Amino acid sequence: MNYNVKLKNIISKNKSNLVIGLDSDLMKLPDLFLKYKNPVAVFNKLIIDNTKDIAAGYKLNVAFYECLLEEGIIAIRHTLNFIPEEMITICDAKRGDIDNSAEMYARTFFDEYNFDSITVSPYMGEDSVAPFLGRKDKFVYILALTSNTGHSDFQKLKTGDRYLYEEVIQKSLEWNKHNNAGFVFGANHTAEIIKFTDKNPGISLLIPGIGAQSNDLKNLMNSLRLCESYVINSGRSIIYSAKKDCSEKEFIDSVRMSTIKLNDEINNLKNACR
Amino acid sequence: MNYNVKLKNIISKNKSNLVIGLDSDLMKLPDLFLKYKNPVAVFNKLIIDNTKDIAAGYKLNVAFYECLLEEGIIAIRHTLNFIPEEMITICDAKRGDIDNSAEMYARTFFDEYNFDSITVSPYMGEDSVAPFLGRKDKFVYILALTSNTGHSDFQKLKTGDRYLYEEVIQKSLEWNKHNNAGFVFGANHTAEIIKFTDKNPGISLLIPGIGAQSNDLKNLMNSLRLCESYVINSGRSIIYSAKKDCSEKEFIDSVRMSTIKLNDEINNLKNACR
Repeated sequence: MNYNVKLKNIISKNKSNLVIGLDSDLMKLPDLFLKYKNPVAVFNKLIIDNTKDIAAGYKLNVAFYECLLEEGIIAIRHTLNFIPEEMITICDAKRGDIDNSAEMYARTFFDEYNFDSITVSPYMGEDSVAPFLGRKDKFVYILALTSNTGHSDFQKLKTGDRYLYEEVIQKSLEWNKHNNAGFVFGANHTAEIIKFTDKNPGISLLIPGIGAQSNDLKNLMNSLRLCESYVINSGRSIIYSAKKDCSEKEFIDSVRMSTIKLNDEINNLKNACR
Repeated sequence: MNYNVKLKNIISKNKSNLVIGLDSDLMKLPDLFLKYKNPVAVFNKLIIDNTKDIAAGYKLNVAFYECLLEEGIIAIRHTLNFIPEEMITICDAKRGDIDNSAEMYARTFFDEYNFDSITVSPYMGEDSVAPFLGRKDKFVYILALTSNTGHSDFQKLKTGDRYLYEEVIQKSLEWNKHNNAGFVFGANHTAEIIKFTDKNPGISLLIPGIGAQSNDLKNLMNSLRLCESYVINSGRSIIYSAKKDCSEKEFIDSVRMSTIKLNDEINNLKNACR
């Protein structure tokens, strides 16, 4: 199924634009998981089981899995198996390499694991992004303006009349033959989100930076009022909401309550902006 | 041991600035390897065993290993074990993500695998590169001006008086507190290499794009005449130099001969330029 359609459907069904970031750091899991052979897989499963009706999907930053080597591969595989087919899965890999190397990355994440979408870094230009965009059945979120402090080092450099991130957007839209390109905008960049969505309301956005990164949800939702398709990612403030020595029930309650609360806040503000 | 010193020593000992790119694609290996449980590991071992006296080190593009999942991890581990300690190892990952994610990548490649160095993509700015640069015992090659066609999409955009890639270089040198930052320049960018090395002769370069990418070695060696530290990567023209149905002896001879030939060409031109 076309990603845009799948995304629209699940947002509507679960009444949620929220994607939960499963950046599951073995060192930060509550103690109760450590008795398992693959603590991350169990941790993720419990989160998914208790949020799959109130989220649009899940985003895995593969850095957290790569450092677990073989156990990381197992954790990704199991995690994706736990996620209902109708929900979207985002591979936060931020890959960027040329032709054959990019083909390999596409093969890994789209074929071996079967993620629906991936984040890519545009620095190397078209032939580094094309192998991902060429997969019509998949979706590619290209880094535009990221939430971290270092975003201003290069992304906000002026290249003539525009900023670098705007050049990235313009070129990416030229490459967007299969209508499967979207962008990553940090939640702190509300002015730029308004500017982008005003011109490109139909292009899907991935918005990280809500929760642990403390960006203002009200301003964000206002900036997204014209955007027809977006997901907002929240990770640490949901998955690490319970105490380290919590029981399983306390963990489930904490994760579910955090998700409901954030989802409700998003939906209330969404309705207020219309 | 400090990377710069290690690199200098091996270049001197083996009389070679050549790094062999072990971008070992399972689909392209000669048939003789397919009988093994881990064909890539055996392929790599045979290459290393027969070139370790005539190269400075090896570069692994991890994309080719990630798609093999668990077998890929085994292949990386075994490959690194086959490489003599005195030779340099480069993890061509082109990673670029923020703080905790970058820390995870550093942990994977520097700690779990123990690569000497890594390639990183600068798009997200300082806090995406800092976790790698903070590892004083390791080296970081930052993408500056890459060899692929798409390099001109963004890297050669003008940002005021300079190009984007020059902004990347300038900022990276400001971050280079431990003297462990270098740059990736494609072999086709000889004018820019001259310009860079004229101002920064002591900064180490990684130069891909010789061999299969058909760039002019003579021009390249001329452009590197002021550069005090560099490695030139060649992959496919060495590792796939034998026929698909070759015998083991033919494979060894082909790989060794290709390496000797390229090394001799580089050294002859190097001497001619002085």
